[in-house]
Amino acid sequence: MSQARPGGRTARTRTVVLEAVIDQLTETGYVGLSVDAVARRAGVHKATLYRRWGTVDGLLLDALTLFADRSVAIPDTGTLDGDLRHIARSALATLTDRAGQALIRAVVSAGHDDQVAQVIRAFWTRHNTMVASIVQRAADRGELPAGTDPADVSRAIGAPLYMRLLVTAEPLDTAAADQSAAAVAAAARAGVFARPAAHAAEPASRDFTGG
Amino acid sequence: MSQARPGGRTARTRTVVLEAVIDQLTETGYVGLSVDAVARRAGVHKATLYRRWGTVDGLLLDALTLFADRSVAIPDTGTLDGDLRHIARSALATLTDRAGQALIRAVVSAGHDDQVAQVIRAFWTRHNTMVASIVQRAADRGELPAGTDPADVSRAIGAPLYMRLLVTAEPLDTAAADQSAAAVAAAARAGVFARPAAHAAEPASRDFTGG
Repeated sequence: MSQARPGGRTARTRTVVLEAVIDQLTETGYVGLSVDAVARRAGVHKATLYRRWGTVDGLLLDALTLFADRSVAIPDTGTLDGDLRHIARSALATLTDRAGQALIRAVVSAGHDDQVAQVIRAFWTRHNTMVASIVQRAADRGELPAGTDPADVSRAIGAPLYMRLLVTAEPLDTAAADQSAAAVAAAARAGVFARPAAHAAEPASRDFTGG
Repeated sequence: MSQARPGGRTARTRTVVLEAVIDQLTETGYVGLSVDAVARRAGVHKATLYRRWGTVDGLLLDALTLFADRSVAIPDTGTLDGDLRHIARSALATLTDRAGQALIRAVVSAGHDDQVAQVIRAFWTRHNTMVASIVQRAADRGELPAGTDPADVSRAIGAPLYMRLLVTAEPLDTAAADQSAAAVAAAARAGVFARPAAHAAEPASRDFTGG
């Protein structure tokens, strides 16, 4: 067999196979995801899938990596409320996207897999870094107390939306996203996400409000 | 075969079988839950399981019902903060409990099943009713704006904890529960969970602060 050119047949096969992974997950969930089922759906030889992706979790991992790699732009609307609303609506878009939904449910079901856990950690580290720059700017403007933890803010924005999708099976709409953003803003302003140490122990060394 | 007495052999079999369901879920997740596996683990004939529970989802449903039926006491600590902290810590207890964790993960994986969805809805309806009485008392004391939606408060308390368990795989500890309670209290006080109609349209007819 000849070697496929980069961006050529190999890339096309990847796209077709990972699309088949999403279709299969949407229809049957992680329980019904198998190399056989994906091969049938994609019209690709089983042997090709085993050679390139190894296992079902290899397929899931690659689909996840492709999805998580979509660049997320850091909003800068000029206000904390505007920035948080932007992030909440981006999360809403992911959670109402067919592929996003299928992958999130699969990740929860495949909770035992170490490689999957690694991809998820990398995703949240990137997300928290993005939120950190928003929190920093808000602190610089005097909108937030110094020492506000970006990871706490980051988790709190998505939490009610993931809850609606995974746990309570409630509608995911713009009102839900905007309410989540408003709740996080109120809690952050009240200092709920501020680390005590940044207030008391280091008054001069970490001047987050110095702009 | 003779009919077992109520509370006798039948009840004991149920306990043994549902404990085996939790064990199997803990070890393999929903993917590995099968009537065969549960029968082997419980030391009960497959035929008995099929006759009484029908399918894997029948087993999951019964385990879920038993777990959800545990009575939850409505806290009345005298303050909104105290009541919310109590609820958040109860949620933490469920989410760090072995059976609770196994069942929550299974419910997310079995998202397609209508009967499972019904049990979940019933659980949240009960939970929201409990939160409603806390919200009402807080409004009566003037701690919360009128028209605060109990369902919004209820969802927001658990959300960061479910997020830690299912999505970000972060530690579940008392600090996390207390932070969630504090965040909800701040957002609720700021009016984020208040329905606009209750403020403007009906000033006299729905006097939640009249207590």
